[in-house]
This record gives sequence, C-alpha cells and structure tokens, in this order.
Amino acid sequence: MLHLAAGTDEGWGHWALEHMDAILLDHAHCEKKAASTALSMIFRYPGCPQLMMPMSALAREELEHFELVVGLIRRRGGEFVRQEPSPYAARLMAASRKHEPDRLLDILLCCSLIEARSCERMQLIAGALAERGAEAPGHDMHELFELYDGLLVSEARHHATYVELARGCVEIEEAALQQRLAELAAHEATVLEAAPRDQPRMHN
Amino acid sequence: MLHLAAGTDEGWGHWALEHMDAILLDHAHCEKKAASTALSMIFRYPGCPQLMMPMSALAREELEHFELVVGLIRRRGGEFVRQEPSPYAARLMAASRKHEPDRLLDILLCCSLIEARSCERMQLIAGALAERGAEAPGHDMHELFELYDGLLVSEARHHATYVELARGCVEIEEAALQQRLAELAAHEATVLEAAPRDQPRMHN
Repeated sequence: MLHLAAGTDEGWGHWALEHMDAILLDHAHCEKKAASTALSMIFRYPGCPQLMMPMSALAREELEHFELVVGLIRRRGGEFVRQEPSPYAARLMAASRKHEPDRLLDILLCCSLIEARSCERMQLIAGALAERGAEAPGHDMHELFELYDGLLVSEARHHATYVELARGCVEIEEAALQQRLAELAAHEATVLEAAPRDQPRMHN
Repeated sequence: MLHLAAGTDEGWGHWALEHMDAILLDHAHCEKKAASTALSMIFRYPGCPQLMMPMSALAREELEHFELVVGLIRRRGGEFVRQEPSPYAARLMAASRKHEPDRLLDILLCCSLIEARSCERMQLIAGALAERGAEAPGHDMHELFELYDGLLVSEARHHATYVELARGCVEIEEAALQQRLAELAAHEATVLEAAPRDQPRMHN
C-alpha cells in the first residue's frame, strides 16, 4: 500500500516516545516543509493544471497539521523553534532526474515516499502510545495518541495523492511508473539507513 | 480603517470589469503569492512565536481563495497560467529597512497595505458589478459579485491581522507605529501611481 522498500524496526516507536519533545518539534518542521513543497509545485509547474487544486488543498491540510502540532508543543510547555534541517528529504530528492518530464515524475514520487514514511512512523508512534497508555493511562498519552492516530490517515491519503498526480501529470505506462517508484523506494530505504541516529527525528 | 494614503478612482472597477479574465488571473496569482509570503514569514522568523499560528491560518485562507478564483477561471473556460509578475509588491517591499526589528515591522506593515489595497480594489469591483448587474442581471455577474463581495471582508481582516502582528512582534510605541504605517502608505500610493496601466492587474 505504502510502497516502502524497507520497514522500520518496531522498536522505533518506543524510542520516539522517549524523545517526544524533539520528535514533535521535528514533526512540526516536517508539516511546514510539506506545505512549502506543495506550494512550490504550483510556482514551478504553472503549465500543469492538474497540480493546482490538489497541491493547494494539500498545502492547506499540512498547515492545519502544523498548527495542531505547534498547539500540542505549547501545551507541553515548549515552543516551535528553529531546528537544523534533517538531511533526509534533500538526500532523497537528490535522486530526481534533471530533465522534464522525468524530473516532475521523480519529485512527485519522492514526495509520495516521504508521506508514506511519515505514515509508517506515525503508525509506530501510535502503536507504542497504545501499548504504553494501556500500562499507564494518562491525559498526555491520550492526546498524543489522538494526534498521531488521526494524522497517519491523512499521510496515507497524501501518499496516494502524489502517486495519482504522477499518473495524471506525466505520460508514462503504469509498469514504468511502478518500476520508477520501486527504484526510488529502494533509494529512500538507503537514505534512511544512512541517517544519523543521534538526533530523534521523524525520518531518522 | 484601511490606512491607505490615496484612494483609487471610482472608474477603476468598471475598467476592471472590461478585463475580467486578466483581472481574475492576476487575482489568483496574488492569492498564491500572499500564501507564499505568509508561509515564508514562518521560515524567516522562527524566533517570533506570535507569528506562527496567525501566519499559518492566513496562508490557509489565501490558498482557499486561490482555489475559489481558479475554480471560477475554469468555469469561465480559462486556465491558471504563468504570468509576468506585477512590480507592485516588490517595489512596495523595497522600502523595508535592512536591520531588525525595523525590517520585520516594515514587512508586516507593507503586507497590511497590500491587503488593504486588495480590499479597496475588490470593493470597487463588487460595486461596479452591483451597478452592472442591476442593468443586466446574469448568472456570471452574480457569481463574480458573490466572489468579490465575500473576499473583501477577508482582505480587510488580513489588513488588521498584519497591523496587529506588527504591534505584537515589535516593541514600538503606538504613535511611532502609526507614523511608520503612514510613511509606508504614502510610498504605496506612489508605487501605485507609477504602475504601468496597460496591463489589467489588481494593483495597477
């Protein structure tokens, strides 16, 4: 369903829970970045009318999520502050080919993989929260669970939206699209494997 | 209320109606640009927590308007296409001072003036449509009137939001803020006066 080439270790969710403040801050940055990327597609591809409405709607949704996450960070006594960017997205996107329409295809498929990985990671966080909450129920656990259990559905939908847009915007046989998606998914798994593990991030 | 230094000639609304396709295209670009500017404030000023939520919400609203306008362009048989950027916003923003916190103050006040001018222009379009519609009622006139009459309220609110954020984000006496707003409003009127009149634009 999510087209990921390698699954994350089940233990990741519990590790993330130990660093929830850092994960939430990174998550807020990811939502902001996702909105910005969607908006930039409208600027970069004005000749692709199929992109306009879905990218605008997706950017709005990412901003809603940004506000949800920042709200939760603040209720936990924190603040949305600057953060050193994670190399994940840039390294993934580096595999995009240079010439159109290959470039557009690759960007859309890379975006779909970022959404897929976010969805997988949110599933792991929600799963770990459900286990932890059953042991030690509390308001904070419940609020975090509601957030991640709610958001992972949107991430899965965004993954599908990007694959669908790749189909709609680029003339390509379905088998060739699936092959390129598998190639980029393999690259994504490599990027993730090489990511530094010292900083708790959504994509580390 | 809108803090503009010079009002637009009443005839502008009727002139805009004569070039409605071009005005709608420019309007869609303005909404997209406004969303992008609001989002960029979150990137540029991570140390200013008061900006985060209002800028994110404002960007979402601008994107909703973008989608409304693109929808109308399409129902009229057109498409959202590339357009040579109007020099208005860049010339206005050129008056921003270089050092913080003056720079932030000036950017927020310039944004407030852009929203104010958009509001004034939308009022003129809605007024001209109301007059025209009374003479020759039609579905198309009605749909345009609904759009502009609805949006101008948001633009007035956005104007107020930016002035309010300037108050909240920068330590400045109210009299000094009002003085700077008046200076920038005078500059805005000059920029508008010098704008080329050959292309129908929201801010020409």
